[in-house]
Amino acid sequence: MSHHIADPVVHREHWREPDDDQLRLECGVCGVWGAPENEASSIVALGLHALQHRGQEACGIASVHNSESFFTERHMGLVGEAFGNADLTNRLPGCAAVGHTRYSTAGGSFLRNVQPMFADLDQGGIAIAHNGNLTNFKHIHAQLVSEGAIFQSTSDSEAILHLIARSRKAKIVERFIDALGRIEGGFALVAQTRFKMIGARDPLGIRPLVLGKLGEAWVLASETCALDTMGATFIRDVEHGEVVVIDEEGLTSIKPFAAQAARPCLFEYVYFARPDSIVNGRSVYEVRKEMGRRLAQEFQIEADIVVPVPDSGVPAALGYAQAAGIPFEMGIIRSHYLGRTFIQPSQASRQKGVRMKHSPNKAVLEGKRVVLIDDSIVRGTTSLKLVRAVRAAGATEVHLRSASPQILYPDFYGIDMPERSQLMAATHSMEEMRAILEVDSLGFLSIDGLYEATGAGPRDNTAPQFTDHYFTGEYPTRLLDREAEEGGREMRGKKVSILTVNA
Amino acid sequence: MSHHIADPVVHREHWREPDDDQLRLECGVCGVWGAPENEASSIVALGLHALQHRGQEACGIASVHNSESFFTERHMGLVGEAFGNADLTNRLPGCAAVGHTRYSTAGGSFLRNVQPMFADLDQGGIAIAHNGNLTNFKHIHAQLVSEGAIFQSTSDSEAILHLIARSRKAKIVERFIDALGRIEGGFALVAQTRFKMIGARDPLGIRPLVLGKLGEAWVLASETCALDTMGATFIRDVEHGEVVVIDEEGLTSIKPFAAQAARPCLFEYVYFARPDSIVNGRSVYEVRKEMGRRLAQEFQIEADIVVPVPDSGVPAALGYAQAAGIPFEMGIIRSHYLGRTFIQPSQASRQKGVRMKHSPNKAVLEGKRVVLIDDSIVRGTTSLKLVRAVRAAGATEVHLRSASPQILYPDFYGIDMPERSQLMAATHSMEEMRAILEVDSLGFLSIDGLYEATGAGPRDNTAPQFTDHYFTGEYPTRLLDREAEEGGREMRGKKVSILTVNA
Amino acid sequence: MSHHIADPVVHREHWREPDDDQLRLECGVCGVWGAPENEASSIVALGLHALQHRGQEACGIASVHNSESFFTERHMGLVGEAFGNADLTNRLPGCAAVGHTRYSTAGGSFLRNVQPMFADLDQGGIAIAHNGNLTNFKHIHAQLVSEGAIFQSTSDSEAILHLIARSRKAKIVERFIDALGRIEGGFALVAQTRFKMIGARDPLGIRPLVLGKLGEAWVLASETCALDTMGATFIRDVEHGEVVVIDEEGLTSIKPFAAQAARPCLFEYVYFARPDSIVNGRSVYEVRKEMGRRLAQEFQIEADIVVPVPDSGVPAALGYAQAAGIPFEMGIIRSHYLGRTFIQPSQASRQKGVRMKHSPNKAVLEGKRVVLIDDSIVRGTTSLKLVRAVRAAGATEVHLRSASPQILYPDFYGIDMPERSQLMAATHSMEEMRAILEVDSLGFLSIDGLYEATGAGPRDNTAPQFTDHYFTGEYPTRLLDREAEEGGREMRGKKVSILTVNA
Amino acid sequence: MSHHIADPVVHREHWREPDDDQLRLECGVCGVWGAPENEASSIVALGLHALQHRGQEACGIASVHNSESFFTERHMGLVGEAFGNADLTNRLPGCAAVGHTRYSTAGGSFLRNVQPMFADLDQGGIAIAHNGNLTNFKHIHAQLVSEGAIFQSTSDSEAILHLIARSRKAKIVERFIDALGRIEGGFALVAQTRFKMIGARDPLGIRPLVLGKLGEAWVLASETCALDTMGATFIRDVEHGEVVVIDEEGLTSIKPFAAQAARPCLFEYVYFARPDSIVNGRSVYEVRKEMGRRLAQEFQIEADIVVPVPDSGVPAALGYAQAAGIPFEMGIIRSHYLGRTFIQPSQASRQKGVRMKHSPNKAVLEGKRVVLIDDSIVRGTTSLKLVRAVRAAGATEVHLRSASPQILYPDFYGIDMPERSQLMAATHSMEEMRAILEVDSLGFLSIDGLYEATGAGPRDNTAPQFTDHYFTGEYPTRLLDREAEEGGREMRGKKVSILTVNA
Repeated sequence: MSHHIADPVVHREHWREPDDDQLRLECGVCGVWGAPENEASSIVALGLHALQHRGQEACGIASVHNSESFFTERHMGLVGEAFGNADLTNRLPGCAAVGHTRYSTAGGSFLRNVQPMFADLDQGGIAIAHNGNLTNFKHIHAQLVSEGAIFQSTSDSEAILHLIARSRKAKIVERFIDALGRIEGGFALVAQTRFKMIGARDPLGIRPLVLGKLGEAWVLASETCALDTMGATFIRDVEHGEVVVIDEEGLTSIKPFAAQAARPCLFEYVYFARPDSIVNGRSVYEVRKEMGRRLAQEFQIEADIVVPVPDSGVPAALGYAQAAGIPFEMGIIRSHYLGRTFIQPSQASRQKGVRMKHSPNKAVLEGKRVVLIDDSIVRGTTSLKLVRAVRAAGATEVHLRSASPQILYPDFYGIDMPERSQLMAATHSMEEMRAILEVDSLGFLSIDGLYEATGAGPRDNTAPQFTDHYFTGEYPTRLLDREAEEGGREMRGKKVSILTVNA
Repeated sequence: MSHHIADPVVHREHWREPDDDQLRLECGVCGVWGAPENEASSIVALGLHALQHRGQEACGIASVHNSESFFTERHMGLVGEAFGNADLTNRLPGCAAVGHTRYSTAGGSFLRNVQPMFADLDQGGIAIAHNGNLTNFKHIHAQLVSEGAIFQSTSDSEAILHLIARSRKAKIVERFIDALGRIEGGFALVAQTRFKMIGARDPLGIRPLVLGKLGEAWVLASETCALDTMGATFIRDVEHGEVVVIDEEGLTSIKPFAAQAARPCLFEYVYFARPDSIVNGRSVYEVRKEMGRRLAQEFQIEADIVVPVPDSGVPAALGYAQAAGIPFEMGIIRSHYLGRTFIQPSQASRQKGVRMKHSPNKAVLEGKRVVLIDDSIVRGTTSLKLVRAVRAAGATEVHLRSASPQILYPDFYGIDMPERSQLMAATHSMEEMRAILEVDSLGFLSIDGLYEATGAGPRDNTAPQFTDHYFTGEYPTRLLDREAEEGGREMRGKKVSILTVNA
Repeated sequence: MSHHIADPVVHREHWREPDDDQLRLECGVCGVWGAPENEASSIVALGLHALQHRGQEACGIASVHNSESFFTERHMGLVGEAFGNADLTNRLPGCAAVGHTRYSTAGGSFLRNVQPMFADLDQGGIAIAHNGNLTNFKHIHAQLVSEGAIFQSTSDSEAILHLIARSRKAKIVERFIDALGRIEGGFALVAQTRFKMIGARDPLGIRPLVLGKLGEAWVLASETCALDTMGATFIRDVEHGEVVVIDEEGLTSIKPFAAQAARPCLFEYVYFARPDSIVNGRSVYEVRKEMGRRLAQEFQIEADIVVPVPDSGVPAALGYAQAAGIPFEMGIIRSHYLGRTFIQPSQASRQKGVRMKHSPNKAVLEGKRVVLIDDSIVRGTTSLKLVRAVRAAGATEVHLRSASPQILYPDFYGIDMPERSQLMAATHSMEEMRAILEVDSLGFLSIDGLYEATGAGPRDNTAPQFTDHYFTGEYPTRLLDREAEEGGREMRGKKVSILTVNA
Repeated sequence: MSHHIADPVVHREHWREPDDDQLRLECGVCGVWGAPENEASSIVALGLHALQHRGQEACGIASVHNSESFFTERHMGLVGEAFGNADLTNRLPGCAAVGHTRYSTAGGSFLRNVQPMFADLDQGGIAIAHNGNLTNFKHIHAQLVSEGAIFQSTSDSEAILHLIARSRKAKIVERFIDALGRIEGGFALVAQTRFKMIGARDPLGIRPLVLGKLGEAWVLASETCALDTMGATFIRDVEHGEVVVIDEEGLTSIKPFAAQAARPCLFEYVYFARPDSIVNGRSVYEVRKEMGRRLAQEFQIEADIVVPVPDSGVPAALGYAQAAGIPFEMGIIRSHYLGRTFIQPSQASRQKGVRMKHSPNKAVLEGKRVVLIDDSIVRGTTSLKLVRAVRAAGATEVHLRSASPQILYPDFYGIDMPERSQLMAATHSMEEMRAILEVDSLGFLSIDGLYEATGAGPRDNTAPQFTDHYFTGEYPTRLLDREAEEGGREMRGKKVSILTVNA
């Protein structure tokens, strides 16, 4: 067996605009098994391109050729740049492949943190791609190092590999499941071994993973939009706590964990998933429109136009406009050309940062009472710039609406959220926020409104249907690492009260 | 006087997706004079970023420092990559600068074709940025070469420089005007000399150019959206046939050409200008919405939803939806992550190309009668892929509407259009097109509808208010080079009948 | 503790001329402990530059800052390109550092094989640089993988790291020695931990390592020429089988292995070491001159000029010329500008390859009887090209002399030698070689002549003073991996008789 | 006719060690006409590689395909890097090509200054490569600009192109000669037009140019070593003031200038030419050895060893050693691995700069009286470092000898010399120099000794056989630009007395 790694890329620094008022998911994952000769990597490349919104910093693909050789390439930058070339078939041959696209993590943007990660086990190689975050990573890491494991990255995906490598089980799938038994948190995993593709989702199904078929080949991906781009047919979600093993014999489903109710992450609907994806059986676009409709119902206001913060606020704004009977207008134009933070000339002063990405459309805004719809409000800094730009363009009133509730608590399952002290709603009263954001009125969709918009009915407070701790403080799992930092107190289901919310 | 050129960039090949069913303008131009110490280049960088939609292949800035030294940098790629860095102030110092962003031209994507171009004249240096196309370039080029001029590029902008360099006039502005007297076609020029900024627009005002102020500094740009991003105030359009000279004395307006009525290019409204720009005093966004409204009036049809081809079709679709009372829906999702043409795996077959950029939103389209709105139809290849994708997503009827008339004739003023034989409407009857595009009905906005949407009233056929030859075949100027190819027959105002239109 | 890795380099492919008739050592190593604030890495860079002849493919430095943070950079290419920059002090801060320069190995030229390698142990980090080759690497590798170790490289240096990481000893030096106890072969190691620098040499001292002082700082390096360039004073050789530990307390010497007589590698004198280095107490330049003198004595011949194959043959040719009283002339000019193998135009036919590097100096050679001196003959391909070039330049006779004996057996201690079937002397009789090389006479220095030239007296056949198996077939250690391939027969001290020598 | 330019290279800055105590020639040129299909560029690449010592900063090749298309590539860096690739045949096709390799000039290291330069004339394209310097460049440049010429570079080669382009002659060879009539200084030119190759040498033959044949093809090159590497046969020198035109008809020789005696540049023998080249019919190696022999005769001294400053001092040191009967030893080892100026750690103090390139060989120097031979002494800074290094290595006496006379005056014909105030011998007495250089004795070869060494007999002071103004102050041509700076006084044959030589 051989393993060929090529990380040939110019390791140029990450140059995209650092926008610290934006949530980031760390990953999209994708895999195919049983593709026509040498096509697996190009199919995975299509899938990763469709998952590009889940991470733009780096991407990688590992392919398995002839059940014998593994080929890996990992690049900084976009999928199209890295894997759009016609020679991909030669560079990453084989009928099975797994891919990954990621945003930066705390570990820094080093190429060595880019996935898929590979290990050469006794039983043969394994390549693994991981979306999510382990809540007991530090705990596991310390134990592995004390046993002599050498980490090459700062990624929790490598911890999973070490657990697999050190498992005392005989077969690779058993080892894989053995390793899953030791990790906690949110995860969606796709792995390739010499003979099998394995997919796994955490016991609560926090992170998404779907299953499809492309002709005879099996496909796994974070979202259905990747299936569409690959030309594959959606079969079903991988279930919470399910491990699917695909090989010559077909698909085997294993449920190694104690049964629990699913609690997928609400933020997939709010922000992360692409609008044309189907998440947990519901169209993301339709859920977002419904969020807008419910927002219109929860806060009735007189206004002339409804304006989305593009692109993520568009569906909610459409729903709002339809429900409220107020015209929908593209009052803010988004530039899709990326740029660093340009130098701000002294004269060209105010709020330049935001104008590089969002430009107010004066002709639409002038003299108008505007309802401005964003998907969520994190720090509030972007919102303030937008509100000022909209007013400078002549809007007479600005009513800001968030299509999701106040974000009050940090996430530990793979969303790159700021510290709690940076979360605007966690540190200010509604009136303070309204004043700071310089709006005439401010509104957040209620938690029940959001639940209803997903079609799941109101929140079941005894057994919530979704992971929603950022809004409610109720964490769905233990937080071993965090608890250790906090002195060992169990935090599951509790509010994290590091910070006293103002007023 | 000194001239410092740094073209330090990795001259990597242009990797963006070649989309041969898209019109391209060759340029955006921008200049500032009288900026605070060393800020001119960063102000121009902001302006170019806002003009990025006019050309993404390459960009350049030339600055003038202390009325003495010229600094030039030219790069392949996006403005944000080339000029977003914090050291720009040092790299391109001075209080005056001129910039350019461009798409590829026939001359190939060589760095040496990138503007601004510079010449060191007897009277001192001049840097020039040019948007447009000369219709007598070959004629001038041949004459200049026979006189001993050495061309370093294949760009017609260099021809203008040679004309200036060889003028027998004493002063640089006189030389500039002397040179303008010898060129024909569409042009918007911004030039910097040691002491002056000069702006010029062709006698018919085919290409746009606007004037603004940023504090004490004067600004010129292709569109008002650049003024907004720079933080400048719009003063007025540079008029057709006007030369503006800005220096210590302020602004001087010169009209060196015989007076004619203006005939700006209609395609700025249809496709090129950014929706938040004001062109010829009219909001591009509002004109496009009005195009949609008139489209709804011209073709009344029963349908369930109105779906734009994003992003350019959005305003017209909004106008259509409002006029027709049919819901507007984002039935097609556009990916803004760029990519080469990915390899198409054999299995993942149909219409992949388009899906990399546009994805059908099944939840919206399924079971619906769809009105699909695009800004224009050129070759029809993209339209067909989109129609098929919309149908594959479950639409029961697809009614395709173009918010502009049939494109029948090529352009020679700076729009990179395919050969006439490639223009779908030039070679097929309406019914043929409908059948080829696999739509239930097909409609193009009438030429009068388009004129009305701009607010200019119906077309004055004796003296058309706009340049519109691509729709009508009536060219507003002589086409010296083309006429030479065609045997010398004058073509102004005539239809170019290279090709017999079918049926 | 933190570890910062930056491998930022353009991973461009290795472009230097692949010269397959040249021996290669795999490494040079160098370390400093106790340097002035943040100067350790720039001192190591000087040392690596002086060791560049030991490997030009890649290089790396790891520094320790404040006994807490490790910084690593690894690059493809030359030391001067990678570490010649003025910002090195900031990139790799600290008072201790270790460096490595290498040629390619069988594992391929991947950046991940470049040293120093780093591991984050329970006790803190350790960075290690290794010159040599383990003869039981495959054995150890298989065992480590079966225990769950994950290898990121194909380098045997990583195996040493894993052994250290997995040792059950408490302290890091104990672990280091524990690991040494499990490896066999030739090695010179320099390691940095948070508080100590460790140097180690294999039990026979096959690979060289010297100790020096630079002010208060301690220095370790493969050769004394590195000490000279760093400005350090030579203290002594690290002894065979010695481990030196340097820390706040000063230097501690440990001899963990059973005592044996030293057997350093003869090829350091023949080819690898720089002529201005002192190896085992003898000047390499003087030893080589003496080799030339003895060559003149062993084969007396009438000739007009003595011509070296530059640069490695120069000292022996000088010695030969002095002993024989024949003028020394630079009859072959060497180009030091590197190049790939250029395309060979059909017309410019003969022996081009060699002429890119070596050009005959016609004015010197014409009409002359030439003694041509090379340091050794491996495949013979370069020799043949040179002989032909010398004859084409007009030499009337060519007498080729090798300043070392016939190379008959492969090396397993870090010299990248071709397969035995490719070694000219292993497969041909003297007369066959003479005929193939088209020379008038051919001579190799005798093994005793070589021993005498080193000053060690004639070879002690019962206990040879040097490692010399390439000439004699007597391997100084077990060859576990090779024996496994050969069916388990012990090979130490035996000739490897894979191939029957002709005649 | 078409012209394809690809300057695709990463325009990375020149990183080689700036050694300001070294003379630099600006160029090597090379051309071939009539090569087998598409082999011209690879033949020229071989020639440029052999001329690499004449310039390492940048290189370029222009080829002519089918008498119709020109292809040009220009790169920063070495020939082997730029043109060593196997695809050269496709990149630069054709049967004729011209190449250029250069060091930096005052104009800066911009890619646009790299040659060959190309112009597209009425009669078709012309590519030109130029070695030398025009003494009336500023004069011509000013005149051309006043006539409207636009310069893209700061190179005097472009001035020649403009003169050709503007000539009123009908045929391209006539235009070329017309242009030559207007330039002054030293030049060797190789040009390719669609149908012809043209070579030209200035009226005094200051810069060298030789003619050869490679099968049926004609070859031109700066030195014979390029012919050797290309596999070509030396035919003859292009004569001073000769223009050779090569086309289908064969070679035509034209002598357009008034006849003068030749005065080739002495520095080709002293330093620039490669030792295996034949310059003006004499072997450079033999001339240098003779310089050494005469040096031994002019200054007899007792010493133990003769040590060259490698590589340029080697032949003179060999000649010295042979004449004086003192052993020749490589007492200084030169590193051929390039490097920037490394950071100098505070502790590793003295004379580090020189040690990166030259290392004293202690074993040879210790306790010895040393004659140190260099080819010339410019600023003296390198000499001082070497002397100190030799003493630090234990030499008891150091006698420094320059194999050429004192350099007293600047050059204006293509040698990049420092300002006169920086020339050690121009500003110090012999005793001052001896003291500053810390040597026991100092000697320079006499001007007659140098003339004799070339075989030309003693200097004919009424009609010197060589260009030797750097030693004598007698300039062989007018220096129009310099005279203008100096107030118009004619300087030919006069000493430039900008500076009063000390005592």
